[in-house]
Amino acid sequence: MMLAISGGVGGAKLAAGLAQVLAPEDLTIAVNTGDDFVHLGLAISPDLDTVMYTLAGLNDTQRGWGLANETWSCMDSLRRLGAADWFQLGDRDLGTHLYRSHRLSQGATLTEVTAELCRAVGIRHAVVPMSDAPARTIIDTSEGELSFQDYFVRRHCEPAFRGIRFEGGAALGDRLDSVLRDGALKAIIFGPSNPILSIRPFLALPGFEAALRGRSVPAVAVSPIIGNAAVKGPLAKIMTEMGTPVSALEVARLYVGLIDAFVIDVVDAPQAPAIRDLGLDVIVTPALMVDAATRNALARTVIEYCSADRKAVRT
Amino acid sequence: MMLAISGGVGGAKLAAGLAQVLAPEDLTIAVNTGDDFVHLGLAISPDLDTVMYTLAGLNDTQRGWGLANETWSCMDSLRRLGAADWFQLGDRDLGTHLYRSHRLSQGATLTEVTAELCRAVGIRHAVVPMSDAPARTIIDTSEGELSFQDYFVRRHCEPAFRGIRFEGGAALGDRLDSVLRDGALKAIIFGPSNPILSIRPFLALPGFEAALRGRSVPAVAVSPIIGNAAVKGPLAKIMTEMGTPVSALEVARLYVGLIDAFVIDVVDAPQAPAIRDLGLDVIVTPALMVDAATRNALARTVIEYCSADRKAVRT
Repeated sequence: MMLAISGGVGGAKLAAGLAQVLAPEDLTIAVNTGDDFVHLGLAISPDLDTVMYTLAGLNDTQRGWGLANETWSCMDSLRRLGAADWFQLGDRDLGTHLYRSHRLSQGATLTEVTAELCRAVGIRHAVVPMSDAPARTIIDTSEGELSFQDYFVRRHCEPAFRGIRFEGGAALGDRLDSVLRDGALKAIIFGPSNPILSIRPFLALPGFEAALRGRSVPAVAVSPIIGNAAVKGPLAKIMTEMGTPVSALEVARLYVGLIDAFVIDVVDAPQAPAIRDLGLDVIVTPALMVDAATRNALARTVIEYCSADRKAVRT
Repeated sequence: MMLAISGGVGGAKLAAGLAQVLAPEDLTIAVNTGDDFVHLGLAISPDLDTVMYTLAGLNDTQRGWGLANETWSCMDSLRRLGAADWFQLGDRDLGTHLYRSHRLSQGATLTEVTAELCRAVGIRHAVVPMSDAPARTIIDTSEGELSFQDYFVRRHCEPAFRGIRFEGGAALGDRLDSVLRDGALKAIIFGPSNPILSIRPFLALPGFEAALRGRSVPAVAVSPIIGNAAVKGPLAKIMTEMGTPVSALEVARLYVGLIDAFVIDVVDAPQAPAIRDLGLDVIVTPALMVDAATRNALARTVIEYCSADRKAVRT
């Protein structure tokens, strides 16, 4: 069984590829919940929804988030009422938020609700939140601290990034914890998610980093930077604001000690020697997932690395 | 200033007529909140919404409830998720419920939220809930006690009516209380609402009936029964189940001691003498509101009665 670690869109794409290749019992997808927030009384889990909608094939590939064939009547209504309208709530998407909010208020855990939501849309692989307790990502910016969605959506990541911290007593989700301890676990795969905004929340969970460092199975991460630009999202801007060059190599640096191999796109092949010098295996492969074929191919490449005799691969 | 008492559709139509004739400062519309309930975590006030949507001209006249140009994407989504789908939530309508739920959770009163909602859709007359405290109508039926929406919507009023009671420590809403005490109050007008399901909740509010009986201004009620049938809703069925003939006269009986005059449709003119024998003035006029013209005409007739020198009218 393999464990995929995912943030939003990039991680979701790789997870969908992995789910095409691996049987339901052979894959667990753990998803960042640091972006979760309560908006107009609704419990919203943006990354869980992105993963779920992508796995179910219900996501809007044009817009890049939310559901396909979405309508916006409720949002029109909220706007007319003068309610906060900086976070777009599609009508179909609202069904998810209402269901989740209602079930959580009944005492269900986020893990349970996520399983119910997945089952309802036909997802057979396990999608689990990284934590059942609220883990709230706070971004320190040039304009002071902002809650994640304030920074990410309301302010479009415009304030300069200065740091990140996590509020709320988040603990490893039961399912993630048991997968990490499971003797059947064969690999840990980090999707091409933002290593700061989406992966750090995992590392901040008590026990996660120790489990990762103490693992006896291969761990691989896929670069979210291709050709010195982020495939999606504010990673390049954030790296620049941190004074770090925007490159796959610099992302690899963030993973040193945590993984065995780093996957980079063919355009970044020249960086492979420097990444190897960090003590990592490098997998050079087409890493831009533009359709089902490319994401499945990338998933297969990662799975092959994890399934191979590692000594043989490393040489 | 006149006070209109309203349940849902019928009362809302008359209120819209009254609002066409009377200036904003000359009309307050108090609305039944006994039908209010919390559904999927949303605070829903069906009668307030019906009155608000009708006054704003946003109501769906074909369907008879909810908003015109409504879409149902969220409902599709909820159905797919296996959520309760017996209460239809339109996407536009959801904006109202989300806004109300959110503001209530922030500590606003239902009176305040209703004023905000009304302002946002351009309503200038005061629409006030009968109570800010939850007043929950419970229907005793042949299948036991049911909460109002369980009886009314989920079960389509199918179980036989046996009685009605009210839960929750509902008290007169501040605005309704102050209007009842206001020296400027010139009349109290009961719309053609269900006297059992929509008007009794008002009478159950401590102080309402005493204020009504002790009033020094005319009070008028419009019959919801025309030609021995209910214009809309389960009133005729309920009266039959109570062993009462379905007639304007029998509705008038329920109002004895509470009003001065009862408005009946011209088709019910033969019942006028019997209603007069109850000690009520009778206003015989076209009472079926099929369009703006008929509802405005009915409103004008009621206002004329209330504005006239009552001694002259009574003779």
